[in-house]
Amino acid sequence: MVTRSRSGTDEEQVLAANRAFYDALRSLDIAQMEKVWLQEDWVRCVHPGWELLLGWEDVQKSWEDIFHSSGQMLISVSRPLVQVVGDTAWVSCLADITTAQKDGFSTGLIETTNIFVRREGRWLLVHHHTTPLSRGADSSSNRVVQ
Amino acid sequence: MVTRSRSGTDEEQVLAANRAFYDALRSLDIAQMEKVWLQEDWVRCVHPGWELLLGWEDVQKSWEDIFHSSGQMLISVSRPLVQVVGDTAWVSCLADITTAQKDGFSTGLIETTNIFVRREGRWLLVHHHTTPLSRGADSSSNRVVQ
Repeated sequence: MVTRSRSGTDEEQVLAANRAFYDALRSLDIAQMEKVWLQEDWVRCVHPGWELLLGWEDVQKSWEDIFHSSGQMLISVSRPLVQVVGDTAWVSCLADITTAQKDGFSTGLIETTNIFVRREGRWLLVHHHTTPLSRGADSSSNRVVQ
Repeated sequence: MVTRSRSGTDEEQVLAANRAFYDALRSLDIAQMEKVWLQEDWVRCVHPGWELLLGWEDVQKSWEDIFHSSGQMLISVSRPLVQVVGDTAWVSCLADITTAQKDGFSTGLIETTNIFVRREGRWLLVHHHTTPLSRGADSSSNRVVQ
């Protein structure tokens, strides 16, 4: 069942929340990233190549570290698939990320699951799970963005 | 809020559903795997090293292919973390999988997100997302299970 409100269907709202997450990632601004997450001790995050982080404190610190060590990011998000069940929703998408670094660029194609929960009408990120994909035979180009 | 029923809390029920999924994987029995999934066209699955599969038809075929090509599996599941929101729940866990193959064994440590939805009192798998992890410096030991 699709529920429509003034600000779009549930699915449209979740996709907007997903875009806001990637906008925050592009911004390298921790304040913007803080706005898209639910800041509770049970949220989880698996960055590319990292072990799982549990709880907002560790997740927030990881974004601070990533933003501190990363240069400007180009991010292209494709194939978003959204499913809403009550006040929970999840998006699968591909993120093609190129990051400027001191010694050049790193690129990675990242298969991602983002889970959101709705709190007071806002969809907030509670789970971010990434998998770096290899690009055909040229796996050396799949250096992941940290 | 923890809801307790005759068959345990919601969290306990979800963890039991998660164990049933890995029991089905160990069984190499497609009928057992079929019982743990919601068989609808929007379920999704990312096997280790695979692109995302969308819909039960493709997901079912992938398990048939995996079970056909795999020998006996040893699976150890650790660090299950469960979150329930209404009729949706998700589990993060680590699966340490060793598979017997024609030319020896392959092993992989797999970071996993499993999402379940509750239908008529049963928790069914709707989303399986895996990331093969490297084991320290010896990345060659991280050959993934297909």
